[in-house]
Order: sequence, then C-alpha cells, then structure tokens
Amino acid sequence: MMDVFEMDRKFMRLAIEEARKAETLGEVPIGTIIVKDGEVIARAHNLRETSQNAVTHAELSAIQEACKEVGSWRLEETTLYVTLEPCPMCAGAILQSRIPRVVYGARDPKGGCVDSLYRLLNDPRFNHECEVTEGVLADECGNMLSQFFRALREKKKEQKRASREV
Amino acid sequence: MMDVFEMDRKFMRLAIEEARKAETLGEVPIGTIIVKDGEVIARAHNLRETSQNAVTHAELSAIQEACKEVGSWRLEETTLYVTLEPCPMCAGAILQSRIPRVVYGARDPKGGCVDSLYRLLNDPRFNHECEVTEGVLADECGNMLSQFFRALREKKKEQKRASREV
Repeated sequence: MMDVFEMDRKFMRLAIEEARKAETLGEVPIGTIIVKDGEVIARAHNLRETSQNAVTHAELSAIQEACKEVGSWRLEETTLYVTLEPCPMCAGAILQSRIPRVVYGARDPKGGCVDSLYRLLNDPRFNHECEVTEGVLADECGNMLSQFFRALREKKKEQKRASREV
Repeated sequence: MMDVFEMDRKFMRLAIEEARKAETLGEVPIGTIIVKDGEVIARAHNLRETSQNAVTHAELSAIQEACKEVGSWRLEETTLYVTLEPCPMCAGAILQSRIPRVVYGARDPKGGCVDSLYRLLNDPRFNHECEVTEGVLADECGNMLSQFFRALREKKKEQKRASREV
C-alpha cells in the first residue's frame, strides 16, 4: 500500500500533467487535481488567456467541477493538489468549499496566500481551516514555471529585435 | 449632473435589488453590480445553495459576466458595487480582474477581507490595488442581512418545536 508521501507525489504528478496542458496553450503552467476516497474527481489547468475570464485559475475551475461531481458546495473529505501556492482568490475558494487538505508544489513569493504573503488557510477567525502540505515535487513545479517565463522573455526580446530590423 | 456620492447610492440601490432576488430564493441576500462608463455591464446575486457551487458568490458571478461583456479578463475603468464587504475569494477575484474601484455597503466583521480581517485590496505587494469606498447605504444592506438571519433562526426554532410535538 502507498503511504501518504507516495500518494501525494502520485497526485502531484497528475497536477503537473494538467499544468503541461496549460503550457501547450501558451498559458502559465499551473494545474490542479481534486481527490476524494483515492479517486480523482476533478482536474483543471489555468485558462486565463484562452478564456479571457479572470477567474479561470486551475484551482477555481477544479473546485467548480468537483462541486458538480459531488452535487454539493461542500467538498468534504477531499484533497486539492496544485502545482503552485494558491493566490488570494483560490485560497478563498478553498475556504468557501471547505476542502480539508491542500497539497501544493512550489511557493509563490509574489502572490502566494497560504504561506508566503498571508496564511489564509490557517486563520482561526474564518469558519474553516485546512491541513496544508507544501513542497511536494516543488522543484519540478517551480522549474516548469521559470522555464515558461524565461521562454516568454526570450520570445519578447526576439520580437523586439525583429521589429527593429524591419 | 449626479455627483459621485449620488451615483454610488444609485448603483448600490441596484445591488440591493440583486440581493433581494437572492432572498426570494432563500439565499443569503448579497448582490453585485459592475459599472463601466456609467452603464451597468453585469449584475449578479449570491446563488450558493441553489447552484450547490461554492464559488457562486455575487461578486464572482458578476466578474465573470463582466469579462464576457468586455471580452477581456481585465476589467479596466469599471466600478464594482456590492452590498457586503467581500470575502477573501471575492477580494482576490477583484484583484485578479484589475477592477480599479470597489464600493461596498455593510462591513462583514466575521469574514470581510477589505477592511475587517485583512486589507487585501490595499496591499502594495500584490500587482493591483483598488480605491475603496465603504458604507454606502450600509444600514439598508446590513439590515437586510440581519433580518434574513433572524428569520432563518426563527424558522429553525419553529421546526424544532414542531418536530418535538410530533
């Protein structure tokens, strides 16, 4: 039988697969998986540019899919896996849906609201708190993002150079 | 011509109208209006119980409608009116959609993240900050909520009494 550590790595690999789907669309590669009783009940990736809808972050889309699957706004006994530390909106959606456990890969020092800038999932003043595990496949999750942004910068430089030559 | 003070009251009245629609469905009465160039481009009310979808708060639904209307995830030059101080999820969605101005009615001392528990819309570490006006028709917005919860408690007491009599 798999222990929690192995299980978390297994599901984070699926979240990374989701993130890769975003990447092929030119979207910032972030992916989410929601698991209940050892089964994946929702998966989603960031689609902000494709949808031109500000709220289509991976977590928010997965939470909506999971609510549909479960038939309730309460996602009890679920675990949410996400490649990057959630932003305030997604941390808030995790609280709203009462997800009991969150596992994330890389920290987001600029916008993360689970450990970096705030600890929204562990504030006893809210009506819900989460168990949080961070750092699962963190390097893989983080490198995927830094490579994406490096390639984007290179592309922009290239376009600038090309436009100067015209 | 209307001044900003009158304008804010006019649009908050429309947000209250939205909240009343939630109330008739047995939903917690919260309503949102999004305005651009003096025109309402989106309106929504809380639908959490009806939809059984954790993210169907008034603000989040209105933001999605406005993105569709504008054709962009950036809601520049808009104002969001909401009857109650936003929760972390909705404050986060306001940041994500770059709404420049937020006007709200009543404070939410238990979960509000604009002034009460956090000041998420005015944190220079995020890539967006908002101009915030609070307290527009605050009594009307707040009383609507306290009456709703009072009626709910009465109903529950009544049901308890009835079940004891059976």
